[in-house]
Amino acid sequence: MPGGQSDDRERLNELMATHDPFFAEFGALDESTYADGAIPKRYKELTGLSISVATRCEECVTYHVEGAMDAGAETDEPIEAIKIGVIGGGSITYPTARFAFARLEEHDVL
Amino acid sequence: MPGGQSDDRERLNELMATHDPFFAEFGALDESTYADGAIPKRYKELTGLSISVATRCEECVTYHVEGAMDAGAETDEPIEAIKIGVIGGGSITYPTARFAFARLEEHDVL
Amino acid sequence: MPGGQSDDRERLNELMATHDPFFAEFGALDESTYADGAIPKRYKELTGLSISVATRCEECVTYHVEGAMDAGAETDEPIEAIKIGVIGGGSITYPTARFAFARLEEHDVL
Amino acid sequence: MPGGQSDDRERLNELMATHDPFFAEFGALDESTYADGAIPKRYKELTGLSISVATRCEECVTYHVEGAMDAGAETDEPIEAIKIGVIGGGSITYPTARFAFARLEEHDVL
Amino acid sequence: MPGGQSDDRERLNELMATHDPFFAEFGALDESTYADGAIPKRYKELTGLSISVATRCEECVTYHVEGAMDAGAETDEPIEAIKIGVIGGGSITYPTARFAFARLEEHDVL
Amino acid sequence: MPGGQSDDRERLNELMATHDPFFAEFGALDESTYADGAIPKRYKELTGLSISVATRCEECVTYHVEGAMDAGAETDEPIEAIKIGVIGGGSITYPTARFAFARLEEHDVL
Repeated sequence: MPGGQSDDRERLNELMATHDPFFAEFGALDESTYADGAIPKRYKELTGLSISVATRCEECVTYHVEGAMDAGAETDEPIEAIKIGVIGGGSITYPTARFAFARLEEHDVL
Repeated sequence: MPGGQSDDRERLNELMATHDPFFAEFGALDESTYADGAIPKRYKELTGLSISVATRCEECVTYHVEGAMDAGAETDEPIEAIKIGVIGGGSITYPTARFAFARLEEHDVL
Repeated sequence: MPGGQSDDRERLNELMATHDPFFAEFGALDESTYADGAIPKRYKELTGLSISVATRCEECVTYHVEGAMDAGAETDEPIEAIKIGVIGGGSITYPTARFAFARLEEHDVL
Repeated sequence: MPGGQSDDRERLNELMATHDPFFAEFGALDESTYADGAIPKRYKELTGLSISVATRCEECVTYHVEGAMDAGAETDEPIEAIKIGVIGGGSITYPTARFAFARLEEHDVL
Repeated sequence: MPGGQSDDRERLNELMATHDPFFAEFGALDESTYADGAIPKRYKELTGLSISVATRCEECVTYHVEGAMDAGAETDEPIEAIKIGVIGGGSITYPTARFAFARLEEHDVL
Repeated sequence: MPGGQSDDRERLNELMATHDPFFAEFGALDESTYADGAIPKRYKELTGLSISVATRCEECVTYHVEGAMDAGAETDEPIEAIKIGVIGGGSITYPTARFAFARLEEHDVL
C-alpha cells in the first residue's frame, strides 16, 4: 500500500484494518496486483514509481522507490521511470520528480 | 471553506476576502451548498470527506472531519465516507485516508 | 462498478472478470462499499454522484444517478449532490454537471 | 461558463438555473472572474484556454477559444496558450491540445 | 505522442508541428523517453498503458496498447498493466479500463 | 521549472540534469514556453499561477508568484490570477489559494 515507511504509516494502516476489513482487502488486492506475474515485480514497481510521479503522490514515490530497489532495480531504471512520469504529467510533476531523486540519493544509487 | 483550522487559515481567509469580494462570495456559495437541505448537513459533510479523500486534499479532510463531527456523525460514518473516497480514487488516496484516520483519532472517535 | 448501462458495459465487465479474478474482486469491494451500512445506501449513491461530478466521470454519473434513483432519492437530492460536486471541483466540472442534469431528465425527475 | 456552444448547452444551463439558484450564482461568479480587470479579458480567456488544456476539458477548450477570439486574440496567442497547457500538464494533454487546434481551424485562424 | 491512430490524429499532429516547433520538440522528447533503454521498450509501453488508465486518457490507451503490442507484449501483460492502473486510480478509472479491454479485443489478444 | 526556490530545489535540478539530459531538455522547453512571445512574459507567468492554483501545486505557486513579480506584475494581477484558478478548480483549490496569498505577503505586495 503506498505511503512513507515511518512507524506512523504502519500504525495507521493497522488502525484502519482493525476498524474495517475493507482496508485489509484493498491492501491485499494492491499487493497481489504488484506481485510477480506476467510482468516481473521489478517492472511493476518501476511502473508504480512512474504513476506516483505522474499523479504527484510523494508517499507513493517513497514506497515504490523502496519496492523497486528491493526488487533489484538498478540506478538508470528508476531514473527512466521518473522521466516517464514527468513527460506524461508535465511540469506540475517536477516537485515530485525532485522528491523522487532525493529518495534515490538516500538509497545511495546516485 | 476547506482548510486546516489553524489561526493562519482564518487569517488568510480574511486577508483574501479583504482584498477581493470574490473570496467572500465563493465562500458563501460553498457554505450554502453544505447547509442543511434536501440532504441533511451531516451527510453533506460526510460527502465532503469522501471527496476530500478521493481528490487527496488533506486540509479539506481536516475541515470536513470537523464538520461531520459537529453535525453529529458517529464513528462508523466517517470511516464509511473514507472507504468511498478510497475505492473511488484508488491506492494513490491511501496517504490521505491515513491522514483522515489520524484526524478521527484526534476527535477521540476511534 | 461505475459505467454506462449499455450492453457493452455489461459485456466488457464480464470479459474483464473472465480474464482476471482481480476485476471481480475489485467490483465486489466497490459494491460492498456502496451497500447499506452506517450511511444509508441512498446517501452513499448521492455521494458517488458528487464524486463523479467532482472528478468529471460521465459514465460514473450515469451509474450513480441510476443508483440514487433506485435507492429512493428524490429530485432535490441529486441536484444538491451535483452542487457539492461543482463547488468542490470548480467550473471545469460544469460539462459533467450538465451531463448529470440530462440524465435526471431521462429519469423524469426534473 | 465552460461548455460547448450547442443548443443543448444553453438549454441545460437554463434548466440548471431554473432548478436551483446556485447555478446562476456560480455562473455569475465565473463570468465576473473572467471580465476585464487588472488582467485584460483577452489574457484571461487565453489563461482559461491554458487551464482547459492542462485539465483536459474539451468543452472548456471550445468555450475559451471562442472567448479569446471574441476578445481579439490573434493566432499566435492561442497557440502559445495551448503550449503552456501542454508543458504544464504533459503528454496526457495532447489529445486535448489536438482538439484545441481543430477548434482554431474552425475559427479560420490557422 | 498519445492519441488515437485516426488520420485526424496524424493530420493535427502535423498541423501543430507546422505552426510551432514546440510540438515537434515535445514529441521528440516523449518518443526518446519511451525508447528502448535501461527499461526495455515493451515495459515502458506497458507503463504508459498503466498511466493512461490511472489518468483516464482514452486516446493514450489506444496509443500505448498499440505500442505495447508492436513491442511484443503478450496478452497477460497488458491485462496486468490495466490492473495496476485501476488499483492506483480507483473505480473512476473503470470506464477507461473497459475501453482498454475493448482495444485488446480489436488486437485479437483476448 | 516549477518548484520552491530553496537551495535544495537548485541542487536537485542540477542532480537531475547531471544524471540524464532529459531533464535539461524538458527544462529548456518549459523556459522557452514561458518566454516573452505573442503573449507577454508577465501574462504567461500569471497564467502559470492560475494553473498552479487550479492543479494545486504549491511549489509551482511559489515559482510563478516570483516569476510574475520579476516580470513586473502588480498586486491586483496575481490576485485575479488566483481567482481564475479557484473558480476553475473549485473549493479543493482553496488551501493552495491561501498558500498563494501567503507568498504575495512575503513579496510585500498585499
